[in-house]
Amino acid sequence: MQRTSFKNMDCSAAKALECVGEWWSILILRDAFLGLSKFDEFQNSLGIASNSLTRRLKHLTENGLLERRIYSERPKRYEYILTEKGRDFFPVLVALTRWGNQHLAPNGAYVQLADRITGKLLEPILMDKQSLLEITYANVIVQPGTGATEALKARLAMRKVDVDEGH
Amino acid sequence: MQRTSFKNMDCSAAKALECVGEWWSILILRDAFLGLSKFDEFQNSLGIASNSLTRRLKHLTENGLLERRIYSERPKRYEYILTEKGRDFFPVLVALTRWGNQHLAPNGAYVQLADRITGKLLEPILMDKQSLLEITYANVIVQPGTGATEALKARLAMRKVDVDEGH
Repeated sequence: MQRTSFKNMDCSAAKALECVGEWWSILILRDAFLGLSKFDEFQNSLGIASNSLTRRLKHLTENGLLERRIYSERPKRYEYILTEKGRDFFPVLVALTRWGNQHLAPNGAYVQLADRITGKLLEPILMDKQSLLEITYANVIVQPGTGATEALKARLAMRKVDVDEGH
Repeated sequence: MQRTSFKNMDCSAAKALECVGEWWSILILRDAFLGLSKFDEFQNSLGIASNSLTRRLKHLTENGLLERRIYSERPKRYEYILTEKGRDFFPVLVALTRWGNQHLAPNGAYVQLADRITGKLLEPILMDKQSLLEITYANVIVQPGTGATEALKARLAMRKVDVDEGH
């Protein structure tokens, strides 16, 4: 499972991947979003080896996505609760699920989202907050942000975006 | 790099992860979204070993996210172009980048999105298409979809969602 670190890449997506850890970690977060919090619950859901689960929970805790809390003093037992940073990861999972539903679910969506209060079904779309333009590859371009390094600016300046490709 | 397959999990997010392949593959897609298409371009951008890059490009092509096209007959050379399925993955990368910008970019966003036509900066938000409700962990619940298996329905019925946790 060793791999090159993405930590020093000047890219938010690479840093996000490094922070989350690895493939399994996204499914741990998925289960946390479904309300699971205890070691055994994650293990039953994921069918993952104890030592692997321990390592990934530790990584997610150290990186601030989960918080470890004592829920039993005798014996001492911990549960893992999503932090604000962890909860903010929810749209990534929704986007991933939406793509899976679009392209990998021939019998219809596996899961769907509903309004927590009204129960109405929801159709998640990534939009610009102000203009409500749908954000797709076809209609946006990527630019350096305020925190872009010189290296990133140079890299983005060299990119070859064929506008027609997006349409 | 061997790991348990997610393919048989009845979950769109797990299937999406399986389909994409692995961590590096997301960065290959990122570069494809920036207009890179040739083997050397991906290799220069990612600093990845040839055999690893070959394997991941093959996986992404076999899974229909990239399409291999001849761009030179003599010598025979190929480029890798995003398919519609690949382009549809764009919102996942945007959501991941947004989270990285929110939590892992102390000096400001690395990259930002702008309207391809007007050049206006965009703020990507995941919303319900009809009601424009912002989709966050706090205000939605997850339900079985039309393609949910009995096992998935049972799993979702057992989930413990503490409504207060989301707020």
